[in-house]
This record gives sequence, structure tokens and C-alpha cells, in this order.
Amino acid sequence: MKKFINDVNNVEEEMIEGMVKAYPQYLKRVEGTNVLVRAEKKTNKVALISGGGSGHEPAHAGYVGRGMLDAAVPGPVFTSPTPDQILAGIHEVATEQGVLMVVKNYTGDVMNFEMAEEMAQSEGISVKHVVTNDDVAVKNSSFTVGRRGVAGTVFVHKIAGAKAEAGGSLDEVQTIAQKVIDNVRTMGVAINPCTVPASGKPGFTLDENEMEVGIGIHGEPGTHREGIKPANEIVDIVLDKILADIDYSGTDVAVMVNGSGGTPLMELFVLNNHVQDVLQKKGIHVYRTFVGNYMTSIEMQGFSLSLLRLDDEMKKLLDAPADTPSFKVLG
Amino acid sequence: MKKFINDVNNVEEEMIEGMVKAYPQYLKRVEGTNVLVRAEKKTNKVALISGGGSGHEPAHAGYVGRGMLDAAVPGPVFTSPTPDQILAGIHEVATEQGVLMVVKNYTGDVMNFEMAEEMAQSEGISVKHVVTNDDVAVKNSSFTVGRRGVAGTVFVHKIAGAKAEAGGSLDEVQTIAQKVIDNVRTMGVAINPCTVPASGKPGFTLDENEMEVGIGIHGEPGTHREGIKPANEIVDIVLDKILADIDYSGTDVAVMVNGSGGTPLMELFVLNNHVQDVLQKKGIHVYRTFVGNYMTSIEMQGFSLSLLRLDDEMKKLLDAPADTPSFKVLG
Repeated sequence: MKKFINDVNNVEEEMIEGMVKAYPQYLKRVEGTNVLVRAEKKTNKVALISGGGSGHEPAHAGYVGRGMLDAAVPGPVFTSPTPDQILAGIHEVATEQGVLMVVKNYTGDVMNFEMAEEMAQSEGISVKHVVTNDDVAVKNSSFTVGRRGVAGTVFVHKIAGAKAEAGGSLDEVQTIAQKVIDNVRTMGVAINPCTVPASGKPGFTLDENEMEVGIGIHGEPGTHREGIKPANEIVDIVLDKILADIDYSGTDVAVMVNGSGGTPLMELFVLNNHVQDVLQKKGIHVYRTFVGNYMTSIEMQGFSLSLLRLDDEMKKLLDAPADTPSFKVLG
Repeated sequence: MKKFINDVNNVEEEMIEGMVKAYPQYLKRVEGTNVLVRAEKKTNKVALISGGGSGHEPAHAGYVGRGMLDAAVPGPVFTSPTPDQILAGIHEVATEQGVLMVVKNYTGDVMNFEMAEEMAQSEGISVKHVVTNDDVAVKNSSFTVGRRGVAGTVFVHKIAGAKAEAGGSLDEVQTIAQKVIDNVRTMGVAINPCTVPASGKPGFTLDENEMEVGIGIHGEPGTHREGIKPANEIVDIVLDKILADIDYSGTDVAVMVNGSGGTPLMELFVLNNHVQDVLQKKGIHVYRTFVGNYMTSIEMQGFSLSLLRLDDEMKKLLDAPADTPSFKVLG
């Protein structure tokens, strides 16, 4: 295992410290926890919290800031944070308007976030949550029952975050978050695995010419393995599966070509080139495109493609100002 | 070679098309060329042009937009663009206030940009240039005489770009660009190589436990190879070399912890954690920090560290609004 680390048991701690020291204008660490909150607490609005296992950077702490999240609760690499950590996050950012938690659909995350929600509610804090499940690849997987929550989650952060910033009520913020979830679909492919530091070896192996189609963001198996194909054919495989789940024809969409952490932008742009051509041919109008590392799997070489169907309100919220370490919109 | 590409001979073309299709609000391709310019030409200001071989994405097209570059001229992977491509860029963005070209110090780039400058000048266009050479690792290298221009170049784009946007004259924009060059130093380390698509095999090889200290952004050799060390010791090696070149004690600096394309953010933050601790101990005040993929080497696993000494004007220009695909400041 070749990595720029010091101690496999201290990677999360040093990473969190490295984030806070990089971005003191955006982030503050809640003492005695791993929770990262906005440097200046925003009151008089619904607070948005997300989180989950580490290893998906910039998710989730990279999206803490004006117009997106109020807190990120990171667990160990690929492991859910505990209910007490999540509760600490809720305590820190809760407002009179309430708290919405954005949870990716993995059994551990859902259980722990729901437990924290109950604990907070028993203290009289108003908390609700939504569960993202945008991955069309498989119905059930190593880490979850139902579809997995993957890169489409970032669109939930952006759009629900803008709604909260604009003064939406807890019900309104939850409704728009759910609307994003209902309209976003994602699928991924990997050509090289990643290594969890504490494990020391790759989470899976692929032959020299093999790719995993439908890969999860923790390296969970997808639909199948096959020989690596030209980029355009890979895009076709992924798009066919997404479009079989939601027919986006005639609609306006946001596109995310998300890198898994070790994939160069060069290849993401080559993939995007064909994505855009196919969508145009199919009469799907692209309103905005995002290409880059948004929801990664440490240094995995892979990508995912997300499509989100947009209405006028969602377009406005997507374009609203955001100022976070890793997602900025000048508005 | 495992990559998301279609045809090794068409990677640059598809990448450029993929960029323009991703960001039509920012980028326009000059017909019949590889030159990317702002979607809406900005007049009444000095035009800023940069470029060089592809493979360093998001450099340089990712920095085209308000407050940074007016044009990026990409060559083939790791190969300078030709004088006629550069001249096409000059023709497209030149204004009455003149054109400043930001050139990284590689023999081919300097020769071709200077040739384009002479051609433009012979047509009566006012053109000047600066040459970035921030890499302290080696004095001469495979691709150049003198120090190499690397990630510090992005600070030149940002600060000179803000000066141009604010209405600075050609002399003033050149002066501040040179001031950044005089005050920025960088050094890099790699633990895994990258593969130029057309070559099909890694540009160099490293043993399982080996790292290249002082690596160039094309994989050129650095000062030496040694066994990979804990992240903090690697930071110490790099910082010692930078601080031996410029004594930053008592000054305000901008820090860039730049990923080489295949390095996960997790590791860049672990590195940054120690960078910040050491700088604090040495009495160097960090004004701003940037962590991410700014000047990459395709999918190389490595990083570089840049320090830039700032005065009040440079701070203001660094913080001025910028709106480009890959570098945004809300201001």
C-alpha cells in the first residue's frame, strides 16, 4: 500500500485536522468530536446535516458552507458515524426552524442517523431526514437493502441547501430534497480498486483488462464484470441503465460526471463528450454539467454518471450562490 | 494501460470537446483550433493567455473565465502548442490594452510562445510574457534549462488575472505576474507514475516502496529516489528545500497542496495537516490555503507544495472574485 499517510489508525483524525486548517474561513470542528460545522453558525433557517463514512472526500465536509450544509458528520473510512457523533452535530447546528438530515442509503447510516434523530426529538429538537438512493445498478448490495445512495446526494445538498438558505420551512426543505431524490439516477464503473488504509490491501481486484460495471462507492460489486471497452461504449452501457429507470426524454437535466478519486479529469472530459452527444440525440436538454471529484472512493479509478430532472424551482436553487470549500456558485 | 478513452490519437480532441460541452457558460472553442476562450469576449482590459501541453487538467482551460484567463492554448499531452495555435489565441482575445502570456518554463513552450509573440507584434498587437519557474527541486531538467514552471503558475493566473480584470495596464499586469513568480516556490513528490495515452506505458517506474523526490509535472526526474516515508517526513523534506530557497519567516503566505491527479483528497489533507503545523512553528502566517487538483500529471499519484509570499495588494487580488470552471472565489 503506497499512500501519503503517517499511521493507518490516525488517518481520519489527521485528515479532519488538515481540512479545518485548510479552510478556517469555512469550517470549525466541534470540540471532542469529528463533526465539522460552518465557521459561523447560521441561525434563523433550517439546518442541513449530512455525513457518513470517510473516504468520499470532498463529501461531505467539502460541502459545508453558505447555501449547502451546516454540518458534516464523518465516520471512519467507509463506516457510518455513531449516533452520538450525529447527535453532537444536531446539537451544534439545530435552530428553531429545525434540522434536516441527508442520509445515503446504507444500513448502518440509516440506523445511526435515525437513532440520533429519535434522541434529538426526545429532547424537543425538530429533526427530519431524507434517504438518497440514486444508484440504479443493483437493488440490494453488500452494505444495504434497496438502492445505494451515491453521487446524486451532492445535488440534494446543493438544492435543499439553497432552499434552506432562502428561508424554506423544514417541510419545504424536506419536500425539495425528496424531489431531487425522486428525480436523480446514477451509475458507476471502476477499472481499478481502492485501498482502505486500515485494511492495507485493495477492497477487490480486477484483471488487467477488466472493469466492474455498476460499482458502489465502497467498491461493492455492481451488475457484472466484463472486458474494458472504449469510453463511449461504457457511457452507452451506463446511460442505457439509467434511462431504463427514468425516461428523461424531453426534460431539462443536470449532469454530473463524477470521478472516483484516482481518475484524471482528462478521462472524465472524454466520457462527458459522449454523454452530451447521446443526451442531445435523445432529446434530453442539458441545463448544467458538473465534471470532477464530487463523491469519491479514496483513490479508486472509476466514474459515475448522474442525471437529475429539473423543474424551474430546482434550476433556480441549483444556480443559487454557494460558498463551500468544494462547491461554489457565484450566482 | 487502463483508461477511459476511445482512441489514443483522439484523446486531446475528445477532451477539449468534453470541456466545452460541460461548460458552455464559460468556454468557447475557436473554430479550427484547440484554443479555448471565454464564452463572452471581455474587452477594455489586458487579455491573459496561458497554455502548454495537455495532461495538467484543470490547467489551463479550467482557469478561463472572469478574473483569471481569457484564453488557454492546449498542446498535445505533455507537448507545447505550436506558435500558430498560440497566435490564433492572441488574435481571438487581443484588446487595445494588450496581451500578457503566462508561460511555464519548458524549452518548447518558451520558444513557441515567444515566436507567437513576435508574429503578433509584427502585426502591431501589443504582447508581453512572463515565464514561471517555481520548482525548486532541480536547476535543469529533461524538458528545460533553468527551474521548471509548475503549480505556482495557478497563483500567477489568479493574481495577474484579477489585476487585469481590475483594469491594470499591460505593464502593471506583467509586473504583478512577475512579482508572484519572484515570490512563489514549489516542490513535488510522486509515488506512482502516469501514462501518456499515446505512449501506452508509464513514463517512469518506481519500486513498490520507492518515491521520486522533486518530481516534475511530466514525470521528469527530481533530486533523488528513496524509500517512501511517513507523510510528515515527506512534507519536512519538501519544506526544507523550499525554505532553503526563500526564507518565508515572518511573512504572510498562500499555500497550495496540489494533487497530481491520482492522489485522493484524504492524503492531501493529511499532508496539509503537517504543512500547517510546521509553518506555524516557523512563524510563517498562512493567509489562504488551497488543497486539490490544480496542476496535475494525468493520473500520477503525487503532490506538490507551493508557498507564495503575499503583500497587501496580492492578498486583495487573490481574494477578488473569480468565476471559472475550476477556480471560483465569491469575493
